[in-house]
Amino acid sequence: MHYQLYYWPTIQGRGEFVRLALEEAQVPYTDVARGKNGVDKLIKKMAQGPTPSYAPPFLVAGEQTLGQVANILQFIGGAHGLAPRAQRGRLWVNQLQLTIADVVAEAHDTHHPISVDLTYEAQSGAAKKRAAAFVNGRIPKFLDYFEGVLALAGKGGYLLGSRLSYADLSLFQLVEGLRYAFPAAMARLDGEHPRLLQLCAQVAARPALARYLNSKRRIPFNEEGIFRHYAALDR
Amino acid sequence: MHYQLYYWPTIQGRGEFVRLALEEAQVPYTDVARGKNGVDKLIKKMAQGPTPSYAPPFLVAGEQTLGQVANILQFIGGAHGLAPRAQRGRLWVNQLQLTIADVVAEAHDTHHPISVDLTYEAQSGAAKKRAAAFVNGRIPKFLDYFEGVLALAGKGGYLLGSRLSYADLSLFQLVEGLRYAFPAAMARLDGEHPRLLQLCAQVAARPALARYLNSKRRIPFNEEGIFRHYAALDR
Repeated sequence: MHYQLYYWPTIQGRGEFVRLALEEAQVPYTDVARGKNGVDKLIKKMAQGPTPSYAPPFLVAGEQTLGQVANILQFIGGAHGLAPRAQRGRLWVNQLQLTIADVVAEAHDTHHPISVDLTYEAQSGAAKKRAAAFVNGRIPKFLDYFEGVLALAGKGGYLLGSRLSYADLSLFQLVEGLRYAFPAAMARLDGEHPRLLQLCAQVAARPALARYLNSKRRIPFNEEGIFRHYAALDR
Repeated sequence: MHYQLYYWPTIQGRGEFVRLALEEAQVPYTDVARGKNGVDKLIKKMAQGPTPSYAPPFLVAGEQTLGQVANILQFIGGAHGLAPRAQRGRLWVNQLQLTIADVVAEAHDTHHPISVDLTYEAQSGAAKKRAAAFVNGRIPKFLDYFEGVLALAGKGGYLLGSRLSYADLSLFQLVEGLRYAFPAAMARLDGEHPRLLQLCAQVAARPALARYLNSKRRIPFNEEGIFRHYAALDR
């Protein structure tokens, strides 16, 4: 099946978690909003029933339209071998994905602690405070958690051990994003999370992923996305 | 099966979304942390493998331990008839639940826009700004979305139409929480969301739910939970 992904065309953002899964699974898809009149198409399609989305990304898979990153990934994971078939393993991967999503939301709010309708510059004072709390309190706690999960998983280097799941791709993207946004803070933390670093290296080296990451399909990080680098926030 | 729910004993918080599903399904469960040495048990159990949780709530179901509200509800929904069996309907309910979870996280951050490690009083200036943006910009947009979903669902009054799912219980809880935290703002909005009000009334009138809501098991809203009433934030 050929999928249609709908997401903002100029950023990695939340859509990137879906793109990574589609690329790793080598599923044919169109990134609709990157085509002609793409954003208009996105806006129009998003509100359509029977399953409208509150926000992008959403994925059209035949007659089905799915929103919310963790939900889309659950579908792709099941259909394309990026999640266990048994319920227990499937729910565990979903739990990990939802915890990754929590970090992503917190990372976003470091540059928008007051309102998504204001610019970063209009809330940079609060942003500095929130970013300090995120960098010093939250990032270490989240990274420690995932390092602990990897220790429990044993050999293989992935969250489930030797078997790759979509949560590994998302964890790679999370760490990449945090490194882009907070390079100084992440450099301090790298030595404490060897398993996490190993996972990121393994994911980046997967052939399909490596091709994608080196292609023009991979939009560079920038200051319109979720992970933004502002020197004032990286302390 | 008898379940063990682990969540903070003095607040509704995120655990309440799980409690509502267990109560509606009339599943026997122990709310572990409300018993003797309960919080110690919670802290100890949370970090245990093979599927440790980053934060409560988590649910022990036999040999399986599940974290993250939307993930726990997916399990309960499937096991106890609070979600469709077919994949398409199951994923749609999950998508709705994840959108509800997004609102819950934003509601929390109105009183903690800078850091979870500081008191509300220490960040009340930023809280006033964030709450104003939430009340005036975000709440209406989210409520409009759910009102639109209910309009698409047609007769029956629930998100899937005539069939109750766990997302209805969570949407009820979300609206209850918003009404507690922001009574003035919600009173202004009530007239614009008749289907949402009807859903809340239907959920509250369900026999098992009504018994629970009138019991001591239902912890009252308070200023330690996610939905907190501070007059300064309700504008």
